[in-house]
Order: sequence, then C-alpha cells, then structure tokens
Amino acid sequence: MQIGIIGTGLIGASIGLRLHSHGEKGISVIGYDVNRENLNLAQKINAIDSIAESIDVVVKNAKIIIISAPILDVKAIFESINESILQNNVEDLVVTDTSSSKSKIIEWANTILPKNVFFVGSHPMAGSTEVGPNYSDGSIFEGARWVITPTENSPQHAIETILSLIEAMGADPMFMDADEHDSYVAGISHMPLFAQIALFALARESNAWAELSMLASSGFKSASRLVATNPSLAFDINETNRMNIEHWIERYIEELQKIKLLLQDSEDKEEFFRFIGAMHLDYLKFLDGAVGREHWGEQLTNVPDYNAFDLLMGGMLTDKLNKLDFDTKK
Amino acid sequence: MQIGIIGTGLIGASIGLRLHSHGEKGISVIGYDVNRENLNLAQKINAIDSIAESIDVVVKNAKIIIISAPILDVKAIFESINESILQNNVEDLVVTDTSSSKSKIIEWANTILPKNVFFVGSHPMAGSTEVGPNYSDGSIFEGARWVITPTENSPQHAIETILSLIEAMGADPMFMDADEHDSYVAGISHMPLFAQIALFALARESNAWAELSMLASSGFKSASRLVATNPSLAFDINETNRMNIEHWIERYIEELQKIKLLLQDSEDKEEFFRFIGAMHLDYLKFLDGAVGREHWGEQLTNVPDYNAFDLLMGGMLTDKLNKLDFDTKK
Repeated sequence: MQIGIIGTGLIGASIGLRLHSHGEKGISVIGYDVNRENLNLAQKINAIDSIAESIDVVVKNAKIIIISAPILDVKAIFESINESILQNNVEDLVVTDTSSSKSKIIEWANTILPKNVFFVGSHPMAGSTEVGPNYSDGSIFEGARWVITPTENSPQHAIETILSLIEAMGADPMFMDADEHDSYVAGISHMPLFAQIALFALARESNAWAELSMLASSGFKSASRLVATNPSLAFDINETNRMNIEHWIERYIEELQKIKLLLQDSEDKEEFFRFIGAMHLDYLKFLDGAVGREHWGEQLTNVPDYNAFDLLMGGMLTDKLNKLDFDTKK
Repeated sequence: MQIGIIGTGLIGASIGLRLHSHGEKGISVIGYDVNRENLNLAQKINAIDSIAESIDVVVKNAKIIIISAPILDVKAIFESINESILQNNVEDLVVTDTSSSKSKIIEWANTILPKNVFFVGSHPMAGSTEVGPNYSDGSIFEGARWVITPTENSPQHAIETILSLIEAMGADPMFMDADEHDSYVAGISHMPLFAQIALFALARESNAWAELSMLASSGFKSASRLVATNPSLAFDINETNRMNIEHWIERYIEELQKIKLLLQDSEDKEEFFRFIGAMHLDYLKFLDGAVGREHWGEQLTNVPDYNAFDLLMGGMLTDKLNKLDFDTKK
C-alpha cells in the first residue's frame, strides 16, 4: 500500500521516517512538495520512497494522504485533490492533515473535497521552531498527543485508518471537536507564541536594547524561544484562528493585571506568596505528568492535596513573613 | 589566601567549583550556609575546602567574601559581618554578593557595613531554575555577563579584586549603575518570570485545564519554564525590585494590546507580516550573538541592514498576499 505525504517539511518528513523505521510491511511512501529541494532531501534521508511530480500523481497512487503543508496552502491542495479525483475516478481515499488550526481546515474540506474522499482532521502536538526535512526526526511523536477532529464525512473505517497511523507514530490519539481544539490550542500554543513576540518586541524596541541584549541570558532566551517560529507559520496561525487568539490575549492581559495587583499589594504578602507557591507546586506536578482530570483537586486552595508539600510551603511562608517583620522593624 | 563563600547553593557552590578547577595557587575556600546539608554537600563535591561554623569564622579567615544567599537574607548577613568586624578588628575585607536585585543590597551595604569593609555589588547573569549545590557547575559563568555595581565605598583595589574574581569565573564583567541594573533586569528577567507565572496560572485556573494540560507540549513547557523558579526567590525578587517589575508589566500589557490590534487588523496584513518578520529576523540575529550597540541599525525599519534576508522576506510576503487575494476571491 502506498501512503502519500504532501508537504515534506519537518512534520511530513518525520512521519515518513517513522513509517519506515517502524518497519510496516508492504508500505511505501510517495511524497510531493512544491519545494523541490525539500522533496529531494526527504527522499535522500529515506523519509519517502518515491517522488511524485504533482498532487495528481499522489492521488492516483496513494490510499491514504497526509497533508503537512503550510495551513493557508491546504485549501489549494484540497482543490488539486478534488480535480484529480474527478479526472481519475479515484474512490475510498482517506485524507488527513497535521495543521495546528482545525476549524478552517474542516470548513475547506467540507466544501471542497468530494464525498467519496474521507477526511479526518488531525494535529500532532509535537514540533519544533525549526523547519524543513533537515530537522526531521521519526521519534518526535513518541508519547505526544495527536488530536483527531472527525468531520461530517469521516466514516468509522477512515477514523480507524488514521488511528492506526497515529499509533504507528507512537502517539496518543485524543478525539476533540475542531472548535474546542482551536480554542484550547490558542490558549497553550498560539497565544503564547504571540505573547513571546510581544516580549521580544518590547525589549527590542526599547531605548535600552543595547544594554538589555547584553544582559539577556538563558532565562530571556527560553522566555522568547518561540520567536524563532517561522513567521509564515505565525501568520497562517493567526489567519485561521484569530478570534480565539484574541480572546486568550485578553484573558492573559487580565491575568497580568491581577498579578500586578498581587505584586503591589504590600498589605497581603501572604496571599502573594501562597499564590506563587501554589502555582509552583502545580507546575512541578504538571511537569511530572499530572495532566487531564487525574491527580488534580477541583480547587486550587484544596490544601489537603498538597500533603508534604503544604508543610514545606507553610514553613517557607512563616520564615519569609518573619524576615519581613524583622525588616520593617528596622 | 582564603576566599569565603556565604551561601553554598547553586551559585555559591558553582563559584567554589570554578575557583578550584581554575587551579589558582594558594587559594582555599571557606564556606558557610545556614543549611548544614548544603554546606556538607558543598565540601563533599569540593566546592569549598573547609566549613565555617558561623559567619564570624568566615570574616576572621577570609580576605574576600562572596555572599550567594537568598536576597532577603543578605541584610542579616551584613549585620553579622558588621558585628564580627567590630569584635575582631578585621581590616581591608572585600565583600561582594550575587543577588539579582542590586539597589536594595547596596542600600543595606551602605547603611550596615563599616567603612573599613569594601563592598562591590555584583550579579552573574547565569543560573538555573534548580537550587542547591547538587546542581552546581563550575562552567555556568563561562562567557556570561557579570554585572558590577560599585558603591560609595568601592575603592579601585576592591573593584580590581572583584574583576579578577569575575575573570577567574570565565565571565565578562559589565559595569552598571545599580538602579539601571534593576530596571534592565526587571525587563528581561524578573518581569518575564511573573509573566510566565501568569501564563501558567491562566491555563491552570481555566475550566478547561484538564484538556489544556493534556494538549500542552514542548512549546507550552518552554513558555512556562521559569515557573519552576523557587517561589522563595520569586518572592525576594519582587520585594526588592517591585517598582521596576510593575513598570515592565505595564509596558508588556501595552505591547500585548498593540499586538492584539495588529492581529485583528484585517486591513493591513502587510504591516502585521512585516512586524512578525522583522522581530523574527532580529531574534535570529540576537541568538547569533548580535548584542549591545554593534550590528544594529538605529531603526527597526532600517531595511538595508537586512541584505539577503530582506529579499527573502519580500518574497515570502508577496507570496502570502497572493494567497490571501486568491482566498478572498473564492
């Protein structure tokens, strides 16, 4: 069976590498990319077995097509797939994509793709600020979530095909409504990208940039790491998920205003310390794998959940407040 | 000659390790820490040669003292040093610290330390979210900036002593006024810390946290990495640099509002793309080491500076706008 990959950049080539390293029998990968250099490189590193000269060739040969192209390019790719299917009487093709916005993709799929193409949207929660097959890596999906957003035209067998693909990638499938997906991803991925661009712009456009840039060390570099994201991707993300991003920026601004008040409030140092302490502990739990509904109390202030941690925090807090008392007496 | 280290946590122990690995002849390091476990461990890993049972013992034996303690503890350490000097008639002691806020430290030094102690504030721009001598590493200062903030009571010989120390650490010394330092560090280090706490809190306190935490991948983890900072340090930073942090949070909120407008503005996609493109290129230059006043034009829009990059951006932009035209025609 042939699997087609349209777009052999970092994600597309990584999928191809994983398909090969996984050693699935009887599978060969045919690739297409408008960027001929990427396409040749993908073949050279064995991410794809053969090169298609057009999307038409992919459609005629593959039973499953994975589109890993820039988001705004997916619409035109759907149109090419549609034309090719009409011309060649192809049936039972299963198509998925890996775009980080889903509602717009599904809208395009529903309006452009013919009914005998089964589309299942998907989004692997893995990636890099790097681009191109040079940075591809068959192991990047290992243990990662891979969201599946079925459409009106996703029959069970098509969903199962994509589930098998996700399992072959070593990823954890997670079903989600496309609108929900876009809202959540705006919160933890798209908005943080633009928030980091804002952080870097603030420093860069400051009159003190010469000094700031000399002082900026590993902390600032990690706090601005996403600014290395290809601006073309950032542009496409905003074009296809603007309302959600806007909403999360507003919420982020409110949260910053809340924190600013907490920082200022010299009357209630205890509340401030409890807040940063609680966030710190929750963050360590999160890094430790406590995600989803497991392990979390309903309330942030659900102190019994902290056990030993709470004692530690209590001790730290008392110590802090004593020092401050000492300080104000002087 | 003995060098004293008060506070043998990650930074103090790293300084000790570097002093030893650097193989300075005739130097031995005497350490003190209220945390006896850290102190023993620092000796075990050879960060210090001997253990002092009190600050008094350090003052009586060392010619140079480096204070690497929690910021709010430094005041009490200055008071202990003062008492010890008065009791023992110690002269010509040179003292420095490594705290990430400087104005408050210098205020304490000026009011508490006697005139025959020469204090030179300093701040190595290196560190980790980890704490304790377990994570110490003699190479963390290699190539890092190390800010020196002299005080009213920093004679030339004391400044030269601290310069030698910084050079022995492999770091680049950078003279700065304490107030300037605090404002700059608030912008690129302290405010980003609280902005990341706000980002994590926003997700954590959301009703969708169960889903958000499952979807959060490497991007979110790097965007919230500083939340792992010891809350005790975050508290001390705010206590000693609150006004500057508040100011930078306000500016950050303004920048986010500016970006939100740019994202929304469907009339001027070109301005948005040029903005994220320019920030991206500047960021890559920054990562590539273009810091300080070198390599930077006075204006962000100083296009000739971009050379080949500008052509690339021009091409990307035209391509993008064509796609959007195509898109709106449908």
